[in-house]
Amino acid sequence: MNTLPDYTGLPRGVADYLPARAATIAAIEGQLLQVAGQWGFQRIMPPALEFEEVLASGMGEGLRSRTFRFDDWQSGRMLAIPPDITPQIARIVATRLRGRPLPHRICYSGRVLRHAELQSGRSREIFQAGVELIGLDSPEADAEMVAMAVELMQGLGIAEFTVDLGQVAFCRGVFEASGLTGEPLQQMQAAVARKDASAVAALLAVHPVPEQSRQELLALPRLFGGREVLEDALRVVKNEVSCRALHNLHEVVAILELHGVTRYLTIDLGETRGLDYHTGLTFEGFAPGVGEALFSGGRYDDLTARYGLPAPATGFTCNVLPLVQALEATAAGCGGEPRRDLLLFNQRADRQEALAIARALRGQGFSVARDIIRRDFESSLAYARATGIRCMLVIDQPEVGCLLVRSSDGKQTKITREQLLQDGFLRQHDLFQE
Amino acid sequence: MNTLPDYTGLPRGVADYLPARAATIAAIEGQLLQVAGQWGFQRIMPPALEFEEVLASGMGEGLRSRTFRFDDWQSGRMLAIPPDITPQIARIVATRLRGRPLPHRICYSGRVLRHAELQSGRSREIFQAGVELIGLDSPEADAEMVAMAVELMQGLGIAEFTVDLGQVAFCRGVFEASGLTGEPLQQMQAAVARKDASAVAALLAVHPVPEQSRQELLALPRLFGGREVLEDALRVVKNEVSCRALHNLHEVVAILELHGVTRYLTIDLGETRGLDYHTGLTFEGFAPGVGEALFSGGRYDDLTARYGLPAPATGFTCNVLPLVQALEATAAGCGGEPRRDLLLFNQRADRQEALAIARALRGQGFSVARDIIRRDFESSLAYARATGIRCMLVIDQPEVGCLLVRSSDGKQTKITREQLLQDGFLRQHDLFQE
Repeated sequence: MNTLPDYTGLPRGVADYLPARAATIAAIEGQLLQVAGQWGFQRIMPPALEFEEVLASGMGEGLRSRTFRFDDWQSGRMLAIPPDITPQIARIVATRLRGRPLPHRICYSGRVLRHAELQSGRSREIFQAGVELIGLDSPEADAEMVAMAVELMQGLGIAEFTVDLGQVAFCRGVFEASGLTGEPLQQMQAAVARKDASAVAALLAVHPVPEQSRQELLALPRLFGGREVLEDALRVVKNEVSCRALHNLHEVVAILELHGVTRYLTIDLGETRGLDYHTGLTFEGFAPGVGEALFSGGRYDDLTARYGLPAPATGFTCNVLPLVQALEATAAGCGGEPRRDLLLFNQRADRQEALAIARALRGQGFSVARDIIRRDFESSLAYARATGIRCMLVIDQPEVGCLLVRSSDGKQTKITREQLLQDGFLRQHDLFQE
Repeated sequence: MNTLPDYTGLPRGVADYLPARAATIAAIEGQLLQVAGQWGFQRIMPPALEFEEVLASGMGEGLRSRTFRFDDWQSGRMLAIPPDITPQIARIVATRLRGRPLPHRICYSGRVLRHAELQSGRSREIFQAGVELIGLDSPEADAEMVAMAVELMQGLGIAEFTVDLGQVAFCRGVFEASGLTGEPLQQMQAAVARKDASAVAALLAVHPVPEQSRQELLALPRLFGGREVLEDALRVVKNEVSCRALHNLHEVVAILELHGVTRYLTIDLGETRGLDYHTGLTFEGFAPGVGEALFSGGRYDDLTARYGLPAPATGFTCNVLPLVQALEATAAGCGGEPRRDLLLFNQRADRQEALAIARALRGQGFSVARDIIRRDFESSLAYARATGIRCMLVIDQPEVGCLLVRSSDGKQTKITREQLLQDGFLRQHDLFQE
């Protein structure tokens, strides 16, 4: 081992999360689970290891090629670490929950692994916390997902963000109606994906299509913006698949108005992304200065069928690490390390008193660490200050009670044992105020 | 995919956790993190993917052979899924936290993977939630770990359990003093591990050792039980290493008496287990009827040095799945699925009112799902009953207010909109009492 160049490093795309950031991650996960619980969702925990072929049934080529997989010498089959939790939920719904009445409201919080290009700087370990609403095909269900995502952002204190709505069937309808296939189709899809209007026009010059399709394809790169995009699209697009998609999106937006979240919405009808399994509405949340989506979701009506139980479904997942980035950019969100309250400093041989006081104060809800190391007052106070412990409590003066010392400035005050054990006294004490 | 015999199954040793059990797992993790927080511990999140050789430096052969590993086509190096979180914490302490003042109080909650014998029925996915106290070599630190584990059990409502204390240096001292080596030593260790006194005697007949060592070896298989074992051992054992171990254990037990946890303690000086890295006190919690330890921990003074920063350390981890088993065996612990409060049933075309009421009730802390499916009263009530939602709230009678229907027995009552929105009214309502 000693000859290794680096025996403590981490692979690219994974990280250690120290207390400040770990607290933010836990807060995001906790907020998602709390909002989900309030909306009637129940948590499920899928495993972090599955048969590769079982996971693969629920994924398109995109996710499949990014899956960590390996031979299992125990079963002789290929195993894999899930790269996405939604297909796992679909499998569970189709198997373990089969026969239970629909809809299912399910939430989860976990980690997945995905290969990423080495130079992309993207995470290979992805923290996902999300919800799935399975068994409902109505626009109200999609609107519920978007409304929950907005409520989550508000709960986290993220004020500035947009929710970008798309509908995967809209573009699909335009492409299908055009009659393009093979390489010209792929080139056209790529041009639309990067909103490159002149590339679209150039392709149409080489690969002519019916006039109506031409109008539709030329319109795609500019069909993004506010709600007026829906009206613009209605005027241009005539093929049935796209019209149905547009109507669906219109309904979702109308319900979102009732939810009071219209001000966050933008619309992108040229959006061709969406995970392999999306079939209808898709949405992604973005905050200024954060490159990746904060959350992403959408309808996936075909996924549970791949595990044997056809059911319409919609859902979204928080992309926890981009959310951490967004939170750290806000004043409120960057809480730093969680505060610790008290360091008990005891120089008496008798530990009984220190242990009893520690127990009582923990019972009052304080976080209390004992400074077990034998060191002097100043060293202990320096330790409390350096590690973010608010006050030191000195217990070596039984006749006069205890000494409370604020670690930020060393300010001291005497407190009797009775005061200390009195519920609320310490919390309201001057030295405990910010 | 369709030709697979089973396209929905799971590998052995992993499982899907549905709402009832997932809630128990989350409660155990939450309790550990809460107790840890109260004792001044801060959470860290290590990654679920590391370089195999980096993990291996922190593990003995036992854990190393049970590690899931695979080639990374991206880095060309061997990667692995951690089989244990403690070596990861040791690495983080020695690298990311180097230079910060000691001691570190660190907690974590995560999942690891370990190979297990296929027929053993043991989990390959292991939920670990634990604490590490790094930088203190005193028996008080070890006692703090045991006291925290006991507090955790009490917080979870597990009343019947024992904490089995061992000291890995005690047996080591006896074996070293005997002068046995090679196969005779291994046979002797195996005989002691299974407390087989006659096998020990038989081995001594074939492989004679000095009389004092003979006495010590013969005593090992019976040195377990209550605190009197410490006195018994003191009379028999004379080698220095074992005597020091005994003295250390004695000190820990004395401090645990101050912590008030003596009634849970048993002592096993013939215990030769302990993870690869343990160096001093070890302890494991057991509950009647649960085969695996509920928690396990101990001192590991050499581990952080393997990552470049020598520091004494102690800690323990909850074995969450055995804890689930122990909790499900108690009346209090088996909570079933978390209760959901309300299903909103709205037959009016206007959704505004239903959304507003849902929002207000969620604000009061209720879990509120909307029954978006168009179905009749009876079907919706049946859904609420089948899915464990306590009451259905019917919103289609604007002139008389709402109708609250208990799903267990269909009992109904009218409630005005004002009452509904009044904080506390619904929670105290008859239909909401068990």
